[in-house]
This record gives sequence, structure tokens and C-alpha cells, in this order.
Amino acid sequence: MGPHPAVAAIRLAVRRVLHDILNDDSCHGRTTSEHAGGRIVARRTRPVGEIPEQSPNERPPSPLVLVACSGGADSMALASALAFEAPKLGVRAGGITVDHGLQPGSDLRAEEVVVRLRRLGLDPVESITVTVGRDGGPEAAARDARYAALDGAAERHGATAVLLGHTRDDQAETVLLGLARGSGIRSLSGMAAVSGAGGRYRRPFLQLDRQTARKACMVQSLQVWDDPHNTDPAYTRSRLRHEGLPALEKALGKGVVEALARTAQLSRDDADALDTWASQAEASVRDAAGLLECAKLYALPPAVRRRILRRAAIEAGAPAGSLFARHIEEVDRLITGWRGQGVINLPGKVVAQRQGGRLVIRQG
Amino acid sequence: MGPHPAVAAIRLAVRRVLHDILNDDSCHGRTTSEHAGGRIVARRTRPVGEIPEQSPNERPPSPLVLVACSGGADSMALASALAFEAPKLGVRAGGITVDHGLQPGSDLRAEEVVVRLRRLGLDPVESITVTVGRDGGPEAAARDARYAALDGAAERHGATAVLLGHTRDDQAETVLLGLARGSGIRSLSGMAAVSGAGGRYRRPFLQLDRQTARKACMVQSLQVWDDPHNTDPAYTRSRLRHEGLPALEKALGKGVVEALARTAQLSRDDADALDTWASQAEASVRDAAGLLECAKLYALPPAVRRRILRRAAIEAGAPAGSLFARHIEEVDRLITGWRGQGVINLPGKVVAQRQGGRLVIRQG
Repeated sequence: MGPHPAVAAIRLAVRRVLHDILNDDSCHGRTTSEHAGGRIVARRTRPVGEIPEQSPNERPPSPLVLVACSGGADSMALASALAFEAPKLGVRAGGITVDHGLQPGSDLRAEEVVVRLRRLGLDPVESITVTVGRDGGPEAAARDARYAALDGAAERHGATAVLLGHTRDDQAETVLLGLARGSGIRSLSGMAAVSGAGGRYRRPFLQLDRQTARKACMVQSLQVWDDPHNTDPAYTRSRLRHEGLPALEKALGKGVVEALARTAQLSRDDADALDTWASQAEASVRDAAGLLECAKLYALPPAVRRRILRRAAIEAGAPAGSLFARHIEEVDRLITGWRGQGVINLPGKVVAQRQGGRLVIRQG
Repeated sequence: MGPHPAVAAIRLAVRRVLHDILNDDSCHGRTTSEHAGGRIVARRTRPVGEIPEQSPNERPPSPLVLVACSGGADSMALASALAFEAPKLGVRAGGITVDHGLQPGSDLRAEEVVVRLRRLGLDPVESITVTVGRDGGPEAAARDARYAALDGAAERHGATAVLLGHTRDDQAETVLLGLARGSGIRSLSGMAAVSGAGGRYRRPFLQLDRQTARKACMVQSLQVWDDPHNTDPAYTRSRLRHEGLPALEKALGKGVVEALARTAQLSRDDADALDTWASQAEASVRDAAGLLECAKLYALPPAVRRRILRRAAIEAGAPAGSLFARHIEEVDRLITGWRGQGVINLPGKVVAQRQGGRLVIRQG
């Protein structure tokens, strides 16, 4: 008798990603673009100063893959599948849990997770305590601290990859959060199946629903921990999960989560293609002095032109996170609705103005 | 003392659109692409057999603009603003109400709307009774019948444009309905500010919220009619309006409607640009016999390649409405994941297969 379907599903998802990792030409390449569908369409460039690719003969015999585990159902399911699949492929499997120190007793809980991960056969297993700052709100600050810790652990242990337990439901929530920003298709593209420097982070469960992960834990008798933050209505994601998304499903039907996840994938591909176009077109709209020519910008499709304007603003020093669609629209009107407007102020003390048929964007 | 801010807002929105209509190079051109932001970025091509553009001297002195009016607050506000603004610009203003015959007494109500529109000074005013079929569900069937009636009326009366009362709230709902299909950014782009043959349909209120339209009716003492369909939970849009969207606003904050409307605009521009790219790239990936070359397709960004595949399937006879992202993904795997797959069946009895490095898509 084979394993329970939920267990089979989580194992298959992890097996596929391990295959991807092992078949990767270089574990050191930087993945600049990925496809969320398991299949990876990546362009890799080696960072300056990095060691050259190793030939297959020189590759270390047993790569290490870590799982980032909060102790919740999603990441415990992921850890169990990694523990089962990795040895069969000659991969070492380890685990990291991050103690954010945001709740009393979080250190004890982290130790519990360590014990559970060791019991699954993972090695090395490590608990890392981080200090969460305040930048960008509580969720963003916790995330930043967590990834910094995971990056550090991956480097310390020489790990080839770090697996993250984000499910299709997390992806759907991320798309809705991006939608609420109203800042275009890049923010609708959710989380990538492969991300981070060198394609370090992998999300094997991005096409798997949360219910399957839960079920897999249950039938394997894995103890899981429910983070009270996940049900705390003070958190946007928690409100979305427990109220927003269920209401949307009630109105639109049960396929909403799947539709949102597919939207993420399609949006990501579209955003990548348009970024490529903008980056190619940018050279052609600059004059000999490197200034943007308004007439040439005007001739481009609005979607491409606005991406070039956005890049130029960021290059001039505008912080990407503070640069909204309305800023770019105002700069765009210097091209499409010219009536002698004055200087336009952008975040980061960047100014944009039209001068003699050229668009000048610089730190003011 | 000027008009109430809500009345000023609806009039400004209509005035802008009337200016756009009057400044249009040709009222007969077909608008193939539009920008939802009031400013129109359109490429016009004259349909075969249509009369050539008239010179300004030959243009009829007083163009007619019709408003499509259900008698609800949005379209009554629109009618009132058109009645106020049109004469000042030398434009004749008329109104059409469509009786869908779906509710008892709908004929009497249509006559009431006719009276109200005449009272506003509109002329001509007409009520048109339509028979709603069943194709595509009740909402789609009613819409098809309505637009057929409006097209007919516009042609009969020689109208330059037909104004529609869709608000920013309607746009937000349309984006969510598109999101639920999960079929990519074109379905996120909502309703266009300008659409239909020759750019006939205009939506002046697409950036205006429903509350403003309601308020404008109230302060002008306009009687409005609340369509019971709008609150009937049997309709997806009604569930979305009264449950889905409010829950989403509660989770994500009050800016959701605006964010969704902006997403529509950005997605539309992005989808237009990618369609342009695909259409240009298509010629370059066909061999001398006109067949699609797999190696050349492979080199394109996935977003562009899949658009070319979709176009090819539709050209071969697959109905656009039945062709989903998963169909195109399967065809795409003939290019990106070739392992000797057999024929792939698509809707409309269209088949796709790979033969000797060429992709053949044809009616089977």
C-alpha cells in the first residue's frame, strides 16, 4: 500500500524541486527570472568575483538542502517530505527554525521545533534567534529578519538551497495583498517558485493547497504548532485569510484560490517580458549625451514607456518602494500631455522635468 | 454659488469625454486600443468598405451623443450631466433605455425612464425591448442583447457616441470577476474608457465612485430606480458587490476599489503592449511555409510565446472564450518540455502537435 494521497503529494512536490536543484547547471548562478510552474526558465549570471562553475567531477558529493520550519503544518509537512526524499537522491537534509522573539515562550517553542526536526532525521538542525526591527511594519520587519537569518545559515552550512513552505493559499493571499497596492502586474505576481541570490530559495508547495499540507501532517502524526499571529485580526494577512478570501470565495466560487495562483504565474511572466522590453528599448530612446528623448519615448507603448521612466527615477535615487503608479503617471504626462509643466517632485528628492525635448530625471 | 461638488464632478467627467469625442480625428475610425485615464491612445483603422473620413467642413454641424440609461442612479446622473453639458458644446443629447423583459412591469418602468429622460431635455429618447437569450449565462445574455440594441439605436439615429454609466465601483467588480477566471492580465483590465466599433462606447464615470453618482441624483432631485437584480444574491456581481468587496475592504482597507481600478488601467496597457509584441514576433517565428518553428518560439519570453500560441489556436478555429490558460500551457510544453507528446486536443476540435521541429495547429 502506498502512502496517503496527501503524503504522496507533498513528497512529489519536494522530489521535483530536488531534481531541479540537482539538474541545475550551477548552484552559484543568480536566477533573474523564474517560472512558478516547477519548470524553471532562468537566466543566470555569475556575480562578479564569484568562483567559476565547478565541473561535475569537482562537485561536492552530497549537497545540503535546508528547510525553513516554523513548526506550523505547512513547513512541518515540507520538512517531513524533505527528510523522506533527500536521502534517496543523495542529498543531505537539514532544518532551520527562526525564533522571532515576538511572543513569550517563543524560545522554548523553537527548541521544540528543533527536537521535532531532528526526530525526522534532519541534520544539521539549528534554531536562530533574531531581533525584529520596525521598518515597513511588523510583518515586513519580521520577514526581513527571518530571511537575513536564513541567508546567514545557508552560507554558514554551505547549503545549496533553502526550502520554504508557502502554499497555493499563501500565494493567493499575496496576490490579493499586491492587488490592494494597485501598483501593477509585478505586484500581482506573488512569490516566485525560485528566488533569492543564486536561486537559493525554493517553494515546492506553491501549487499545493494548505489543506493537503495539514492532512499530510495529520496522517503522519506530526505535531504542529499554530502561530497565533495567523489568526490575529491585527494582521492584514490574517484578516485576508479568515475573512476576505472566504467572502470572495463565497461570491465568486471555490476556484478563487487557484485562479489567484494562476494569475500570479501569468503576471510574473508578463512582467518579466515587459521588463526585458523596457530594458532593451531604453538604450534606443537616449541621445548621445544619455538623455531621454521625449519624441522617442512618446512613440513607445505606454506600458514600456512608463517602465523606462520608473527605472530612470530609481536610477536617479528614488526608493522603489515609495515610487507609486501616480508618480510615474505624472512624469509620463511630461511626454504625453506637455503643456509647459514645471518640475515634478518624486520620492527621494528626485525631480523630473522636460527641457528642450529631453526628459531630465535627477536628484534635486 | 456653483453646483454641489457631486454634480460638478459628474459634469466635469462628461465634459471631458464630450471634448474627446469632438476632438477625435474621425468618428468613424475603429479604436483598437484605449487608455482608461481619459486621455486616449488609440490606433484607428478604417474598416473595409466604410466611407472615407469627412473633412471638418463636411462634418454635420451638430453631432448626437446618446446615453444608455437603465433609470438607476449611475445612468440617471450621467443623463443629467449630458443634458447639461451637451448644448454648451453644440452637441445634441439623446437617451436610450433597454427593456430586457426579465421582470414583470419592466415595460412600464422603461416608459417611466423615457419620461424622465425627456424631462431632462434629451431628444431623441427611445425605449427598446429586447429578447434575452441564454448564451453564456443570464448576465452575459442580457448584456449581449443590450449592446445589440444600443448598436442598432446608435446606427439608426446616426449617433457619434453612446455614453455608459459604469463607475469605478463597477470597474473594481469587473476586475475581481476577471481575477476569478485566472486567465491573465487581459481579463484583469476591466472595461475600457472607450470601446466598441469606432470607439462608439464611452464610459465617463470610470474614475468616479458610485456614491458620487448617487449623491448627484439626490441633490438634483432625480428619481432613480434600484434594479432588484443588483441586490439579488443569485447574481455573481451582486454577491461580489454586497459581500465580497466589502469583506475585502474590511481586510485590506478602504483603498481597494481605487487599487482595483488602477490595476485595470495598468493591466490594459500591459496587455496591449504584449499583444503588440506578440503580433510583431509572430512573423519572425514562421518558416517559409508559414509554419511555427519550435526553436524560434523557444527563444521568446514565455509571455510572448504563449500569446502567439493562443493567437494561432484561435486562428485555427478554437473559440477564444473556451481557450483557457491550461490549454495554452499544454501546447507550450510541446516547445519547452518536448518528450515526444502526442496530439493535444483544444476546444473547437482544434489539434496541436509538434512535427519535425514545427508546431502544427489546425482543425482536426
